[in-house]
Amino acid sequence: MGVRALWFERGALYLVDQRRLPERHVVLRLTRTREVARAIRNMTVRGAPAIGVAGAYGMALAAREGRLTPAAASQLLVSTRPTAVDLSVGVAHVRVAWERGESPTAAADGFRDRVVDECRRIGESGARLFEGAPKVLTHCNAGALATVEWGTALAPLRVAHDRGSDLFVWVDETRPLLQGSRLTAWELAEEGIRHAIIVDNAAGHFMRTGEVDRVIVGADRIARNGDFANKIGTYEKAVVAHENGIPFYVAAPWSTFDGARPSGRSIPVEEREASEVLGASRPRTAPRSSAARNPAFDVTPARYVTGFVTPDGLVRPRALAATLRNRRAAPDRAT
Amino acid sequence: MGVRALWFERGALYLVDQRRLPERHVVLRLTRTREVARAIRNMTVRGAPAIGVAGAYGMALAAREGRLTPAAASQLLVSTRPTAVDLSVGVAHVRVAWERGESPTAAADGFRDRVVDECRRIGESGARLFEGAPKVLTHCNAGALATVEWGTALAPLRVAHDRGSDLFVWVDETRPLLQGSRLTAWELAEEGIRHAIIVDNAAGHFMRTGEVDRVIVGADRIARNGDFANKIGTYEKAVVAHENGIPFYVAAPWSTFDGARPSGRSIPVEEREASEVLGASRPRTAPRSSAARNPAFDVTPARYVTGFVTPDGLVRPRALAATLRNRRAAPDRAT
Repeated sequence: MGVRALWFERGALYLVDQRRLPERHVVLRLTRTREVARAIRNMTVRGAPAIGVAGAYGMALAAREGRLTPAAASQLLVSTRPTAVDLSVGVAHVRVAWERGESPTAAADGFRDRVVDECRRIGESGARLFEGAPKVLTHCNAGALATVEWGTALAPLRVAHDRGSDLFVWVDETRPLLQGSRLTAWELAEEGIRHAIIVDNAAGHFMRTGEVDRVIVGADRIARNGDFANKIGTYEKAVVAHENGIPFYVAAPWSTFDGARPSGRSIPVEEREASEVLGASRPRTAPRSSAARNPAFDVTPARYVTGFVTPDGLVRPRALAATLRNRRAAPDRAT
Repeated sequence: MGVRALWFERGALYLVDQRRLPERHVVLRLTRTREVARAIRNMTVRGAPAIGVAGAYGMALAAREGRLTPAAASQLLVSTRPTAVDLSVGVAHVRVAWERGESPTAAADGFRDRVVDECRRIGESGARLFEGAPKVLTHCNAGALATVEWGTALAPLRVAHDRGSDLFVWVDETRPLLQGSRLTAWELAEEGIRHAIIVDNAAGHFMRTGEVDRVIVGADRIARNGDFANKIGTYEKAVVAHENGIPFYVAAPWSTFDGARPSGRSIPVEEREASEVLGASRPRTAPRSSAARNPAFDVTPARYVTGFVTPDGLVRPRALAATLRNRRAAPDRAT
């Protein structure tokens, strides 16, 4: 399997500290529900399915600790992050078992097994989407780290790679917290899948210049009509993929689908601290073994321009060639 | 006037070192053409019109030094960066004067005066575009630092602000070199124009949620048909603005228009070192006085999704509601 985000053993939840990757692989051992809530809030563990499973084990630890009611433990865990629905699904799954007098730990194990099995099946069912379409773009991290094992968006890529496809993955660095350059690049490097890190700004450029065959991302909550929330920036990639006729896939276990939400309008979007935007926490943002591409400019077709604001007023794109001809002809044109 | 990127005085070119802002305001004094070439290449001075003027003064210094022919000095300066056409326009302008036996310094002064005057007129002519449309998004830095004085994209905002418009500017941070959070935010803070820095990923989210009335950017080279090159990421912003019906303006002096290029296909796009992408050079990326906004997710409408890769295979957005209904009805659905 290789990468695993978390596991439960003898009454403790073990988490890979995702804030420390790729520089250090640190595993934390948590035995209290409050510690789990803090780890979810501060993004020691992140990714919708992974925080669903962490939340499930947080409930199991609450039942062992015996200090909180099922309702209070549930409230503590679910309040940590608002957007990913998996968190409340995982917590509710264990709460139901606990309130019925069944084993909360067994319920959490069952929820984890289901998530892992569903991610494996996402890999199996999705791998064919990349046959003959080897250049893939992904945003943020929807890998094993985000889901316990396999990943969502990365699962089909792992399976296609194992089946012998020579994939190449464009990894959006995913500011502000750099889950792409820190985590996705690390997972791909561990698997030996070829990739290059790009700034988020460059995704559209490579789509427009024919360097992207498919886009695949994970999700944090998918409404009944298919509108979905995912890491900031996903929307831009989807619009630009659509504009360029590039298929755009969203990979998710069933715990991410929220049939109770009619559309994206009712999905809560978390807003985090400004300090994440006002600074960058590390001088090196990527694994030592990962390459990058760095086009400094891109070219925007005229059809997206409303007007050029020139020293002589607004010029519409359609009038530009004639304007330039006239300026060349005019005697006062300095060169 | 406030901010000024460069000036020429008693045989020396003075440049604000744009790599050090916003932490430090350092002015460098250059007297040799090679120093000017290096300053353009390493982005001590950047922005298409500003490197055009720097290149013009680089030619004037070459004539004073007397070591290089006009052709060799021109070659040295123009080879530093390929995308912005202003550089070759500014260099050619002085070369023609030099070869005619006219004063190269006077020719460079004339080129600078023209750029400054054109930017002032861009401000005058563009300010009305923001009347009743106070929420503006800009990408990279197209301010005074990019153009000697006034700016291109920022010139109309300065004028509108001076005329009493209560503008609010969304500043894309502009990875990898952060010209937005470092330079544009600094200029806006100096002018007292309200703004918030966002990661490049968030621009689409704020466009989609009605928080952006206008987008305005600068350019590095504009082809005859209106296709234009600008800082990487501009293309994505333009597509998403178009998708949301938001007017998208490009502000540029005439030196940025390249009537010899029929379309964007023939514009060279510079690719810079991977190290800029693989790391971030500074812990704090923005002025102390600038605010930021930090939505962690965005919502993507279903119409951009080709399919959901689920544990049970591909589900098209149109079939999703029925699939979720059926799953709820099925007895094997765990919760």
